[in-house]
Amino acid sequence: MVKILIIGAGRSATSLIDYLLKNSSSLSWEITVSDVDLSLAKEKTKNYSNAHAISFDIRNEEQRKAQIQTHDLIISMLPAFMHGDVARDCVESGKHMATASYVSADMKALDKEAKAKNILLLNECGLDPGLDHASAMKIIDKIHYKGGTLHSFKSYCGGLVAPESNDNPWGYKFSWNPRNVILAGQGTAQYLEDGEIKFIPYNRLYKQTNLIDIEGYGKFDAYANRDSISYIDVYGLKNIKTMLRGTLRQHGYCKAWDVFVQLGLTDDTSKITNSNSLNYTSLLASFLPPAKGTMKERLKNYVGKDWDSEIEKMFDYLELFSNKAISLQEGSPAQLVQALLEEKWKLKTGDKDMIVMQHEFEYTLPGVNDVQKLDSSLVVIGKDENHTAMAQTVGLPLAITVKNFLIGKFKLSGVQIPTKKEMYEPMLKELEENGVVFKEKMN
Amino acid sequence: MVKILIIGAGRSATSLIDYLLKNSSSLSWEITVSDVDLSLAKEKTKNYSNAHAISFDIRNEEQRKAQIQTHDLIISMLPAFMHGDVARDCVESGKHMATASYVSADMKALDKEAKAKNILLLNECGLDPGLDHASAMKIIDKIHYKGGTLHSFKSYCGGLVAPESNDNPWGYKFSWNPRNVILAGQGTAQYLEDGEIKFIPYNRLYKQTNLIDIEGYGKFDAYANRDSISYIDVYGLKNIKTMLRGTLRQHGYCKAWDVFVQLGLTDDTSKITNSNSLNYTSLLASFLPPAKGTMKERLKNYVGKDWDSEIEKMFDYLELFSNKAISLQEGSPAQLVQALLEEKWKLKTGDKDMIVMQHEFEYTLPGVNDVQKLDSSLVVIGKDENHTAMAQTVGLPLAITVKNFLIGKFKLSGVQIPTKKEMYEPMLKELEENGVVFKEKMN
Repeated sequence: MVKILIIGAGRSATSLIDYLLKNSSSLSWEITVSDVDLSLAKEKTKNYSNAHAISFDIRNEEQRKAQIQTHDLIISMLPAFMHGDVARDCVESGKHMATASYVSADMKALDKEAKAKNILLLNECGLDPGLDHASAMKIIDKIHYKGGTLHSFKSYCGGLVAPESNDNPWGYKFSWNPRNVILAGQGTAQYLEDGEIKFIPYNRLYKQTNLIDIEGYGKFDAYANRDSISYIDVYGLKNIKTMLRGTLRQHGYCKAWDVFVQLGLTDDTSKITNSNSLNYTSLLASFLPPAKGTMKERLKNYVGKDWDSEIEKMFDYLELFSNKAISLQEGSPAQLVQALLEEKWKLKTGDKDMIVMQHEFEYTLPGVNDVQKLDSSLVVIGKDENHTAMAQTVGLPLAITVKNFLIGKFKLSGVQIPTKKEMYEPMLKELEENGVVFKEKMN
Repeated sequence: MVKILIIGAGRSATSLIDYLLKNSSSLSWEITVSDVDLSLAKEKTKNYSNAHAISFDIRNEEQRKAQIQTHDLIISMLPAFMHGDVARDCVESGKHMATASYVSADMKALDKEAKAKNILLLNECGLDPGLDHASAMKIIDKIHYKGGTLHSFKSYCGGLVAPESNDNPWGYKFSWNPRNVILAGQGTAQYLEDGEIKFIPYNRLYKQTNLIDIEGYGKFDAYANRDSISYIDVYGLKNIKTMLRGTLRQHGYCKAWDVFVQLGLTDDTSKITNSNSLNYTSLLASFLPPAKGTMKERLKNYVGKDWDSEIEKMFDYLELFSNKAISLQEGSPAQLVQALLEEKWKLKTGDKDMIVMQHEFEYTLPGVNDVQKLDSSLVVIGKDENHTAMAQTVGLPLAITVKNFLIGKFKLSGVQIPTKKEMYEPMLKELEENGVVFKEKMN
């Protein structure tokens, strides 16, 4: 029996847990589903005979070490900043670990010891990062195999709302951690364009967007992810001229979101005390430079030439001009905005989310002068507000790859992400069988 | 014998250490000067018989607890984020503590226990915060004593370079921690104006400035400090309409500094790897939106209508257009800018710094209809690049107040800042004897 410990049984872990449970008896796995909330863990284990649920607090060092000690592979579905202690204990105890999160500096530091102990530390194996690496590397390897040279690689991904459930002017509902959406892009974005490194500061990120066309789904805004540069080495693209990874939103979203950025309403570093003595309209007033007029007129003047009927609809929809109460007693501007948006951008009963991913390659092949342009795109629509495309595309790549590792389809140790053929090939094949299919198109 | 432990013997501690050493034999004090760098501690203790120097690393818990245990009062001149452990150990061991730093949440949390044990935790007792509180409260208490009502309080302070040593177009040289200057203002500034709470986001902070006139010293830009609101309660000004604390720079500085802010060059949250493969001109190019022309033309176009010959001189002075090398191998944009400015804004041999502080009061007195306007201003010029006005005005208020506490001039416990008469009155008097004199002027 192989013993698997899953830490965290929230919505984003649903598909992963389901997949592992379904395979548990045929592959002789014993699965422990754990969460701070025992009832959540119990609900997710259903009635599988090979599974049981436990209450688990990773800050409890004793319990953490004991649980890790008695399992063979640990999957952490916790927020990324909580992986550190688990990873250290895993390496210490000689246990494998898997996450969907970006490789952190803490994780990287464990690579050598993990390799020496022949332990796998699998990371970036969800949707983005994860499926993006796998699907991009499949094409990159093919180009290299043909002796070709990749000149430009642009890759975009967005977790959005499906057209049939899109009933608000922002074209957005939360299918994952709202806090990450509010704080997205803070810092400096780095990418490569025509051989030159480019930086975009936060205050220009939602202005300097690309317009992306996804066949059958219309136009999307793309803003640059924080770090595209480090993937040049990771993907083995030493001489590439253009390398950009970005995030997709419905066209029009970025221009409107930039209003929040410019107002300072996405700042998370300062607390507003007694914030419930304000309402959302007086909060807006306090962030606007002093001026006369109604609040909508003041905002319109502040936004200037970018103000149009679309933006007006978006801000009307958020009830920003109607003295809507603030309930948080103290919070950063970002937290106050988050509280409002969690109400406004909630997936309702029956709502479907949508994952959109598109890679754009420009390459030359030996003996051919013309630059080849290839797009590879994926659209996944969720089932309902609980069985989301987000949970599926985050959970399945990780679950499949863990399975493939356990049944010996690949043998790797140390910190790994799914860029190697032996990892991405069976993962993409099985995802296709589950309806997660990329469409390729030469331009 | 009263035993005093001073932690940190850097430049900003010079005046404090000197003052305490001079009083050590007449007041029967035994003084331990400690620093990670023993030679620095030794140099600062000079040959005073009541003093000795030790090497001290506050991260060494055993040594920290042992040293605190064997002293009666501990003065921490470390950066603010390092006070926490020292404060907890002080309260645990029943020892008094003093700092020039803002009261942190950690410090606040110790108030109750410190009061129960009759221990003083003195904070915000340097220049700003410190002398600003003392000098403002002296006038506020006077107005209240006369039965008056304070309607508006604005207070500004800046650590600058003296006119006779001002040989660069920015009118600025570093007299304290450069990092704090580069990162100044990040987050959201909060203040009160005409009864309304106002927020200024970072991207507007250096645009939304006030012009301040200091008699005999010309015009200065003032930008709002992060938190003016919490001092309404601290100063006992419940019904005040306008409350603003700000920082002074030479007039023209803020408009130019805003260029760095808008470009994103003050971001400290993202690392640029291989930054030494860039130079300051290509760094600038990477942060500018794509455009044609020389680098100066591109920057000029980006800045737009705010560009003038003054700003041009300021950026020329920094050698931003002449491919100046970057030496840091990896750093945030803010760290790369800091490295450049540390070279350009260094106090040279013989250079004098300057402290400027101005309070502006608007109040009414009983039976008088007209609003009274009173300004209270301070200018202190340093001796040379080592004996700075900054070190003097940070160190003396703290040293004097520690002395007054030890000789029984005031008896207080728990977290205190110098807003109480028994603290500020003897402090201000002794500062006057040392040439630190506020000038009052009715407008």
